[in-house]
Amino acid sequence: MIKAAVIGATGYTGAELVRILSRHPEVELVALTSRSCAGTPYYQVYPHLYKYIEKECQALDLKSLVAESDVIFTALPHGHSMEIAAEVVKQGKKMVDLGADFRLNSVQQYESWYKVEHQMPDLLPQAVYGLTELNRNKISSSTLVANPGCYPTTALLGLAPLINNKLIDVSSIIIDSKSGVSGAGRKLSLKTHYSEVNENFQAYGVAAHRHTPEIEQELCKLAGEEVTISFTPHLVPMTRGMLSTIYASLTKEMNQEQINSLYQEYYSGEYFIRVLPPGVLPQTKALAGSNFCDLAVTLDSRTGRVIILSAIDNLVKGASGQAVQNMNVMFGLDEKLGLDMVGIYP
Amino acid sequence: MIKAAVIGATGYTGAELVRILSRHPEVELVALTSRSCAGTPYYQVYPHLYKYIEKECQALDLKSLVAESDVIFTALPHGHSMEIAAEVVKQGKKMVDLGADFRLNSVQQYESWYKVEHQMPDLLPQAVYGLTELNRNKISSSTLVANPGCYPTTALLGLAPLINNKLIDVSSIIIDSKSGVSGAGRKLSLKTHYSEVNENFQAYGVAAHRHTPEIEQELCKLAGEEVTISFTPHLVPMTRGMLSTIYASLTKEMNQEQINSLYQEYYSGEYFIRVLPPGVLPQTKALAGSNFCDLAVTLDSRTGRVIILSAIDNLVKGASGQAVQNMNVMFGLDEKLGLDMVGIYP
Amino acid sequence: MIKAAVIGATGYTGAELVRILSRHPEVELVALTSRSCAGTPYYQVYPHLYKYIEKECQALDLKSLVAESDVIFTALPHGHSMEIAAEVVKQGKKMVDLGADFRLNSVQQYESWYKVEHQMPDLLPQAVYGLTELNRNKISSSTLVANPGCYPTTALLGLAPLINNKLIDVSSIIIDSKSGVSGAGRKLSLKTHYSEVNENFQAYGVAAHRHTPEIEQELCKLAGEEVTISFTPHLVPMTRGMLSTIYASLTKEMNQEQINSLYQEYYSGEYFIRVLPPGVLPQTKALAGSNFCDLAVTLDSRTGRVIILSAIDNLVKGASGQAVQNMNVMFGLDEKLGLDMVGIYP
Amino acid sequence: MIKAAVIGATGYTGAELVRILSRHPEVELVALTSRSCAGTPYYQVYPHLYKYIEKECQALDLKSLVAESDVIFTALPHGHSMEIAAEVVKQGKKMVDLGADFRLNSVQQYESWYKVEHQMPDLLPQAVYGLTELNRNKISSSTLVANPGCYPTTALLGLAPLINNKLIDVSSIIIDSKSGVSGAGRKLSLKTHYSEVNENFQAYGVAAHRHTPEIEQELCKLAGEEVTISFTPHLVPMTRGMLSTIYASLTKEMNQEQINSLYQEYYSGEYFIRVLPPGVLPQTKALAGSNFCDLAVTLDSRTGRVIILSAIDNLVKGASGQAVQNMNVMFGLDEKLGLDMVGIYP
Repeated sequence: MIKAAVIGATGYTGAELVRILSRHPEVELVALTSRSCAGTPYYQVYPHLYKYIEKECQALDLKSLVAESDVIFTALPHGHSMEIAAEVVKQGKKMVDLGADFRLNSVQQYESWYKVEHQMPDLLPQAVYGLTELNRNKISSSTLVANPGCYPTTALLGLAPLINNKLIDVSSIIIDSKSGVSGAGRKLSLKTHYSEVNENFQAYGVAAHRHTPEIEQELCKLAGEEVTISFTPHLVPMTRGMLSTIYASLTKEMNQEQINSLYQEYYSGEYFIRVLPPGVLPQTKALAGSNFCDLAVTLDSRTGRVIILSAIDNLVKGASGQAVQNMNVMFGLDEKLGLDMVGIYP
Repeated sequence: MIKAAVIGATGYTGAELVRILSRHPEVELVALTSRSCAGTPYYQVYPHLYKYIEKECQALDLKSLVAESDVIFTALPHGHSMEIAAEVVKQGKKMVDLGADFRLNSVQQYESWYKVEHQMPDLLPQAVYGLTELNRNKISSSTLVANPGCYPTTALLGLAPLINNKLIDVSSIIIDSKSGVSGAGRKLSLKTHYSEVNENFQAYGVAAHRHTPEIEQELCKLAGEEVTISFTPHLVPMTRGMLSTIYASLTKEMNQEQINSLYQEYYSGEYFIRVLPPGVLPQTKALAGSNFCDLAVTLDSRTGRVIILSAIDNLVKGASGQAVQNMNVMFGLDEKLGLDMVGIYP
Repeated sequence: MIKAAVIGATGYTGAELVRILSRHPEVELVALTSRSCAGTPYYQVYPHLYKYIEKECQALDLKSLVAESDVIFTALPHGHSMEIAAEVVKQGKKMVDLGADFRLNSVQQYESWYKVEHQMPDLLPQAVYGLTELNRNKISSSTLVANPGCYPTTALLGLAPLINNKLIDVSSIIIDSKSGVSGAGRKLSLKTHYSEVNENFQAYGVAAHRHTPEIEQELCKLAGEEVTISFTPHLVPMTRGMLSTIYASLTKEMNQEQINSLYQEYYSGEYFIRVLPPGVLPQTKALAGSNFCDLAVTLDSRTGRVIILSAIDNLVKGASGQAVQNMNVMFGLDEKLGLDMVGIYP
Repeated sequence: MIKAAVIGATGYTGAELVRILSRHPEVELVALTSRSCAGTPYYQVYPHLYKYIEKECQALDLKSLVAESDVIFTALPHGHSMEIAAEVVKQGKKMVDLGADFRLNSVQQYESWYKVEHQMPDLLPQAVYGLTELNRNKISSSTLVANPGCYPTTALLGLAPLINNKLIDVSSIIIDSKSGVSGAGRKLSLKTHYSEVNENFQAYGVAAHRHTPEIEQELCKLAGEEVTISFTPHLVPMTRGMLSTIYASLTKEMNQEQINSLYQEYYSGEYFIRVLPPGVLPQTKALAGSNFCDLAVTLDSRTGRVIILSAIDNLVKGASGQAVQNMNVMFGLDEKLGLDMVGIYP
């Protein structure tokens, strides 16, 4: 059994890690830390796990926690995972960081977009960007995985087949993304206050969201050239789910069938990517609680653009599910272990 | 492997059966019937099951379907399961009916509340009311199980410990129930049209809902005397979940601790009943996708009443989950098999 | 023009006062106070009022604010209106308090339920309970009106015709109420965090909610005897709207028609009470943004109970609309002035 | 008083017309027609209007209805307004068609996108496209106004200042739109069934929606050249509201301030267009029930694009409100009459 600890277990991505790991046949949860709830039984914070989790939330004692664990999941706001990573590496354990601290390869980019100093720049070169399908080999031999952001997960999985094959104009990419409210976490804010969000739809972070450099960095690796995108996130009055609508101009003429084939082949071995059959479009509800990414690509022949629809459950494939998927890869397990969950519909 | 067929597989309870049975380790799905979608791949009707279900929906050929199945689940409107049951019994197979045709012991009651003739009154005596926790022994030796309605499930599980011990005045029972919209099924209706239901709350079927005689019949068995209740269902603008608030006057003085102990003991061996710890109240969201019933009972000492809160996922413990639980019991399997699902939260 | 000030203008009941008063033909808004937003243009807090309100939020300077106003609305948490009332009375102005400080006639009751000391017990005798339809005469000559709570508004309007005519057993009353989330205000709390509330239904304050003594006090006045009730509030995943389902046993036999007539006659002159025609049940959505209370009463002949459905928009008839209705009465204006708003549907 | 008739009064845009017109100081409603509800009191179909509308729904007797009316509103599916228009023109009355039959100037375009024959092509030249702010003069002297679609309203108002001044590359325009469910009307459909739509987000009509040629036609008039766009509509799990996110590349360098000024000036005399102050972004909830269009434009300096956010209430400015605005213009009334409604928030 792999001994796993979750640091930041009472946020939503933490709770989703606990839900998944509590049912994982090869994992034993050894510690759930929470600054705000230390000493409280976990089921009092999350009653859906009553009878599944007996543990109390505990305060973080870093050294001993790392010592008793094989793998540490950090589900913390940015800026809080760097010292933890240093201790994990020092003790030779493995870590999946669900935050942003190790996603950007460039310290300058990180500090410019996140407005905090990076305390462990020396660790950046060994951090692997954990979009499992695109980076599986590196992840399998890594000890420090930077789990992708939810928006980048949809954008990169949606664009990879085309951009990797140099079939789109990299200056034409527009990513219009829509997210459920749980992506903003459990921290209180007027932006996530029920009466403000319900029956409301709005954009935020226009031309300024921190996932922009992350998407560009990884697209650049796939394209082999610099990529600058327009990215607009929106808040949807629902709890879970994310859908990105992605626009790009083709650089060579393709018909709808060729596009379908390209996607089917590119992801042919990937269990968690479902290229939907013609006539079926992604919908977030079909993914609730599951680790799939559903894709459909439409040729807009009037304009020469493709319109890519890419949907996930933001808390699963967009966060905790992919983190466990990465753990499975890091430990040489079947990638699907503990993750083969059907979405709840309706 | 148990060969299972679902008749009426494209309604919501049918789809939930398919979701659960597709992951059940001892079940093989042999047929999914649908009048409206025969010939269509099931995943086109329910894309969340894409890659899980390859089967097409098929028209119902009753004799051959029963012949190739060990157990038949009927997820149909009332009035449509009677002939199917006759064939199942004739061929010596097992059946769980999720509709209302075999819930009421009295033909007169059935015909008076449901306004259709009962075509198989001879089968009624062998039908067992499938509230698993209250009727396990009979279910285990039964071939025809009448799966309870969702409202009765909450009401009966909530009241059983008190009424079974003659601790409440049976003339004082008021059941005020609230259900998510999925309980009304997938059939189109203005009552389930999004813009009519969203941001709306209303009662329906006041003093006239068909689950009334079902609740009274089973309460009567528990009480050993006639019981007449007031029951009011309401529609909540959410998809899944049901909570009943039940009021009853104590016939003897009890304190809060005694009430808690009564419930803890009454359900001490029951995996799917969670009597919540003091200070935690049921909430439907903690149950989404799970087969639990969560209970909390509060003593209203000012009035001498108890206020019982009883919550379930209406499609799982209120329908398809309990149906599979009953199947497990009928086949001598571990009752939890295929049903040990954590709720999705948030 | 009546000069009106709103103290606590950035909470939801404050904002609703501003919305209504900004369109009131006889009112001039002279001040909007807010502790947290002083100095901010009001439209930045509430963009729906952009182009309607030019004013900035201001800090509270009590003496001068009262001096420049004819009427003061206080939309504050309990405990904060007492000193303001003293100043208003001293300067001979009028006040409508939307909080709880002057609702209970008994200082002991107030302090026992609200856990704070009442600082102005001498003012209690002159405070009038502002359920307009039941108390119009007293309100018209009052300077200090205690605007009712939202739950009591539904309960009292629903029960008045029967209890006032001694037609129900006062020990049998059960009030099962369901409220939209805006009733909990704009203050951040996990209980109103979108992802916790959405797709969730739950009870709260079971047998312990502070509106209980308020309902009992006013029912007692209507009944002419002591009344003890069971009252359970619930939270509905919607923003606006409240519906109470009220159960009571008849003390004398009545048929459905007699009940209908009783309600039609009792409220025959009341513009804002709509006793719905037979076959139509109240639904909260039909009331969104309006000052109506919709009522329907069903006889449950099997049990001898009546089931009363009483619905309002909790922010309008349940708070700010009724406050303006009271102001109209206090100033001798047409009661409908500024309030004749059709609900927004769907 | 202007005598107005609403043909198709029981759909959502019909009901919204009735809500607005019932409060309009210069209008008398003379007839409400409905095929499905003829003979039913209107308040039974729409209880929010109980006490406001005494009329029954009536079957359509076209000649006499036109004879007794000064203006006819048609709120019908496409294909049903053409013969009505002929009668209106014949009798010299005025008409506002909320459907699509007179929006496209080209019969070929209409028949190719809508798949029905146009029965009154001779009337097309006299039909005026009723986007009030962009077409006021023509509307004022028109008898037949084609009220714009909801999506085109957001797109055209959002793009007009830039495209009319030749500041954007017309081949770069991408319109990513999101609509509440009420836009799909009251007609039953699985696409608007509560449990399918709630907690779900999805695109539809990708690269194929019928509002595409309407947007292009009007953009072409503003640009003075052919315009081809990409347009993707999405369904948001909320009842009311629409927001379009529009991307376009600038043809000349501008800074954020210059863009703000351009919009402020372009719409300086327009009551119903609110160019939001810097730092405030449109949100659909701030517009619920109101006739405003809220706009904000952000320069994405990294890509040289503008990102325009344009929001409305789809049933008001996107349909019935604009229809009444057009009626006001057609009859020489103050354009705001009956329409100066504050949005309901929260």
